Amino acid sequence: MAKRKQPNEEKPLLPTIHTVEDLRALPDADMPRLAEEIRAYLISQVNLTGGHLASNLGVVELTLALHRVFNTPRDRLIWDVGHQSYVHKLVTGRAEQFDLLRKPGGLSGFPRREESPFDPFGVGHSSTSISAALGFAAADALAGEQDRYNVVVIGDGALTGGLAHEALNNCRRDYPMIIILNENDMSISRVTGSFPRLISRLRIARGYRRMKRGTGKFLLKIPLVGKPLFRLVRGVRNRVRRLFYRSNYFEEMGFTYLGPYDGNNYSQMKNALEEARDKKRCVVVHIRTKKGKGYPCAEQNPAEYHSVYAGEKKTRTFHEIFGETLLHMAEESPAVCAVTPATGVSTGLAPFGAAYPERLFDVGIAEGHALTFSAGLAAGGMRPYAVIYSSFLQRGYDEIVHDIALQHLPVHIIIDRASLAPGDGATHHGIYDVSFLGEMTGVEILSPMTEGSLIAMLVAKKDARHPVAIRFPNDTEDEALRDTFYPDGDFSAFGMRPSGDFSGARAVLVSYGAAAPRALEARRILGDEGIPTEMLLLEDLTDFTAPAQYLAERLAPGVPVVFLEEGIYVGGAGMRLDAALRAAGYTGRYETLAIADGFATPTTPCDLYAYLGISSSDAVAAVKRLLAL
Amino acid sequence: MAKRKQPNEEKPLLPTIHTVEDLRALPDADMPRLAEEIRAYLISQVNLTGGHLASNLGVVELTLALHRVFNTPRDRLIWDVGHQSYVHKLVTGRAEQFDLLRKPGGLSGFPRREESPFDPFGVGHSSTSISAALGFAAADALAGEQDRYNVVVIGDGALTGGLAHEALNNCRRDYPMIIILNENDMSISRVTGSFPRLISRLRIARGYRRMKRGTGKFLLKIPLVGKPLFRLVRGVRNRVRRLFYRSNYFEEMGFTYLGPYDGNNYSQMKNALEEARDKKRCVVVHIRTKKGKGYPCAEQNPAEYHSVYAGEKKTRTFHEIFGETLLHMAEESPAVCAVTPATGVSTGLAPFGAAYPERLFDVGIAEGHALTFSAGLAAGGMRPYAVIYSSFLQRGYDEIVHDIALQHLPVHIIIDRASLAPGDGATHHGIYDVSFLGEMTGVEILSPMTEGSLIAMLVAKKDARHPVAIRFPNDTEDEALRDTFYPDGDFSAFGMRPSGDFSGARAVLVSYGAAAPRALEARRILGDEGIPTEMLLLEDLTDFTAPAQYLAERLAPGVPVVFLEEGIYVGGAGMRLDAALRAAGYTGRYETLAIADGFATPTTPCDLYAYLGISSSDAVAAVKRLLAL
Repeated sequence: MAKRKQPNEEKPLLPTIHTVEDLRALPDADMPRLAEEIRAYLISQVNLTGGHLASNLGVVELTLALHRVFNTPRDRLIWDVGHQSYVHKLVTGRAEQFDLLRKPGGLSGFPRREESPFDPFGVGHSSTSISAALGFAAADALAGEQDRYNVVVIGDGALTGGLAHEALNNCRRDYPMIIILNENDMSISRVTGSFPRLISRLRIARGYRRMKRGTGKFLLKIPLVGKPLFRLVRGVRNRVRRLFYRSNYFEEMGFTYLGPYDGNNYSQMKNALEEARDKKRCVVVHIRTKKGKGYPCAEQNPAEYHSVYAGEKKTRTFHEIFGETLLHMAEESPAVCAVTPATGVSTGLAPFGAAYPERLFDVGIAEGHALTFSAGLAAGGMRPYAVIYSSFLQRGYDEIVHDIALQHLPVHIIIDRASLAPGDGATHHGIYDVSFLGEMTGVEILSPMTEGSLIAMLVAKKDARHPVAIRFPNDTEDEALRDTFYPDGDFSAFGMRPSGDFSGARAVLVSYGAAAPRALEARRILGDEGIPTEMLLLEDLTDFTAPAQYLAERLAPGVPVVFLEEGIYVGGAGMRLDAALRAAGYTGRYETLAIADGFATPTTPCDLYAYLGISSSDAVAAVKRLLAL
Repeated sequence: MAKRKQPNEEKPLLPTIHTVEDLRALPDADMPRLAEEIRAYLISQVNLTGGHLASNLGVVELTLALHRVFNTPRDRLIWDVGHQSYVHKLVTGRAEQFDLLRKPGGLSGFPRREESPFDPFGVGHSSTSISAALGFAAADALAGEQDRYNVVVIGDGALTGGLAHEALNNCRRDYPMIIILNENDMSISRVTGSFPRLISRLRIARGYRRMKRGTGKFLLKIPLVGKPLFRLVRGVRNRVRRLFYRSNYFEEMGFTYLGPYDGNNYSQMKNALEEARDKKRCVVVHIRTKKGKGYPCAEQNPAEYHSVYAGEKKTRTFHEIFGETLLHMAEESPAVCAVTPATGVSTGLAPFGAAYPERLFDVGIAEGHALTFSAGLAAGGMRPYAVIYSSFLQRGYDEIVHDIALQHLPVHIIIDRASLAPGDGATHHGIYDVSFLGEMTGVEILSPMTEGSLIAMLVAKKDARHPVAIRFPNDTEDEALRDTFYPDGDFSAFGMRPSGDFSGARAVLVSYGAAAPRALEARRILGDEGIPTEMLLLEDLTDFTAPAQYLAERLAPGVPVVFLEEGIYVGGAGMRLDAALRAAGYTGRYETLAIADGFATPTTPCDLYAYLGISSSDAVAAVKRLLAL
């Protein structure tokens, strides 16, 4: 092996890989070196562009083996969640575009069908991979393409999501599907629960399996009798194995189970994948990898390095303010508790969890359960705060309707990341919650945009007897906004805040949430241009009768209203205020600037707000248009 | 035992049970007789009122044992799905109200918190019970009430739902929670998949456990040495058991597992529940029951008797038309396939499944997976039809957004039961789909209300390259509606159909879906009263620009528009047409009659439509109001 490596020792391998064929042309012996080169590249590159580092460092050897053992893209490779697909992108013809990873016009941080034939199924949320692969496998079976493999890589964290179990239950054992279970004992933070315990029990089999492999190889070397003897021994062994290793969940379900293997050992990976491939049926390959492998900081604290943000960190985000306030409320009331679907650290719950570990429930990547469990806590007399990203809350639509809202249970739904996600892309846009929560009778919807109003809301609603949703972007408060709408610093009168008395205004802007600072900016620009404009900041989106009444009473004839919204148009606040204004007798001009295409991401390096028509310039232009200026 | 029974032989026991205390006062020996009385009562009663028969016949002995072993309502009893709670209602003080089961003002067919303290958590959808019970248990633990039990009854069908797995993963083993796994091998129709296979493997242990029980009892009878010897043997036995029965999924997860037991044997049930109770930790009790027990027809065909509909069956519902059309399309194209979350029979898929079993995928009670799996099928080149009840589609909100719509995959989402569900109640109202699908960019939404237009849509959209949702109520076509809007029988021009040329109309009604026949009835009433009114039937709810333009061009000044909708108001078609009309320059009067409170069910015996303000009389009144008549 030393000999083989020598000639290439100086020349780096990574720059020679332009296509997956280049990767396949290299000898196995080069793979460990290539893996190290890829790690070094990822560490330097992801620190520049931002993105998920630790999970990608963990799957380097696996990714190399996958593309060498399987005939991608004909064989399909489906990464669950997808944030661990950087190595995959590097070796499938996308290395040149890595400078623009997660940037407008550049590579997505997740697999996307439009990006490459090597990405058969787009993703961003957890636990979808087995369902998707099963769909492909069923399609192949119906098309008679039994020689085509569908390969899934899913972490143990993603197996805490119910969707993965629905798919496992439904798997056909005769489909040539490979499910690679990557045990790294981490989802976004540490995996909790019974299922990981079960997975770890599978490791017991390890020593036994090693023995088995050794025996088999030895027998095969005996000429003539070797193969039949091997088969016989294997038969006995399988019965023994059935007797001793009945514990295997996957075998009980009828899958062939292989492993566990060291996922950071290229040879083990290659052999395991070849063995799985040759079974030509549904096989679970259990591997263990080290998240953050090769990067000491990341290895020690992978939760922090799960996603590396390029650029400096702002101070005191809304979720940090929430976390601190929750801590104070918990000191006062033993009923206060928090529920997180594996995103406790990134939503400001760490201090609360440190102070009250018994009242912080990390339920795994399981938004549906987080919400129904919270409903149970509330029915049992507690005051649960379910803290969930806006885009992930979509997984719990029915649980909010059926378990929380229908029963009027006092669950606080704290919605973080309620805004566009330019870096992560369309799967992570938090732009639907206002519309879908609006459909659910009796759910109060609040959208604070200052630290003070967030705190005031939490305090005012702490004893609510109904569901309360409080949503905010992953951002800090805008000082100009705070000083304009709360000049006296009295945040208790949150809900609807005007910038002035409207009497001299030629137009009125209305906004809420992440778009509000841009509406305020539009007001400033219009004022500078000699078009006096006022603004109404909405922080309560439950009902639009009050703001409609307020506006209808104050708007002089000919004064148009422009609503600016960082949310989907249908069912959104702009559409609802429009209807309420009409019901209040307003007959003037009204225009909503909201998101028409929820999946749009800029394909050229332009600003996402401008692309969607919800920038401050768009608001300025709309006002001028309605005033016929 | 025969002696004990004799004195009561003539007097029926059931009428003597007014409270759960009455039930507890009876001797164990009376339970088999009481069970038979309850069965006879259910069979006669449910055939009168309609409702779920088979599942309730299966759990009679279990329910009796539960209320005698546990201290309900302090100990909480949570029925998954809840359609098997009739016996529970009978013995918890609600027998007198059984005549009004599932009727306005009467008992709900499901547990409801408002109805009784014995119903701690309302339900109607599947797989929520473990999450809810875990919430209660966590609340108890934090309140220091460790002596309070939370007991769940969940069928093996409900375990195909991912939410149950999310909760199982999250269970604390030290909580006094009892999870009764009721294996009846049926969800709504037969349970499919790997998970039931795993459950059935648990049965292997049965003979062994019986032996164990016998040995133990024998040893205990030996004076003095009996108890220590019993403990020693039990220790050895547990090791043996661990060795041989590692296969037990629940034990692997860390639960105590008991069973399987005959759930239709009262004594076994009582003993098992007492054993579980005395463990004072999280215990899974595996029981087997016979769905439809005691009713020969139901035993033989429980899927058909799952829910007994009172009254006669109408001919050719929309889902039957769909099923027939799908069959024809499948004959023409091998790419056509259907996906059902355990509701194939009730959504008209039986003929398709009989003809093309390999193209019908019953994925279990797993709406999320049904949709992501369909996305995979579509990405693999198939033409999947995912057929799901409207209220259950709510479980798949994120899967439609993230897997289907974002990727523009040609999945047909066929939405059945898209209307109010007066019998089942609020959990089953199919009234959100138009709003929430409207938020998802690129999803075409069609709402046929004639057989002809449903068929025309299916044919016209069969080669669509984008997601198409086709929604209809559980009903047949309305002949008056068909004759009014398709007088020439040409259904190919579906989408927007006027009742006339609008020139002489004093008002215009607009409607779609289940409310459309009532709007037509309002038009007739208004005409009879000398107020000529026209109607616009919408069967395409994707975009409202075209109908807004159409109306804006034709409406004479002073002619108001009344929109009648059997759907939630926020984000609904009425609100969207309103906004589109305003954008098209219409300044006249407009009123939407839609559902403001999605959870309202009449509490007095009045008509549900009238209660919600969406009856034909409400439409008539609205027109008159807007005309100031």
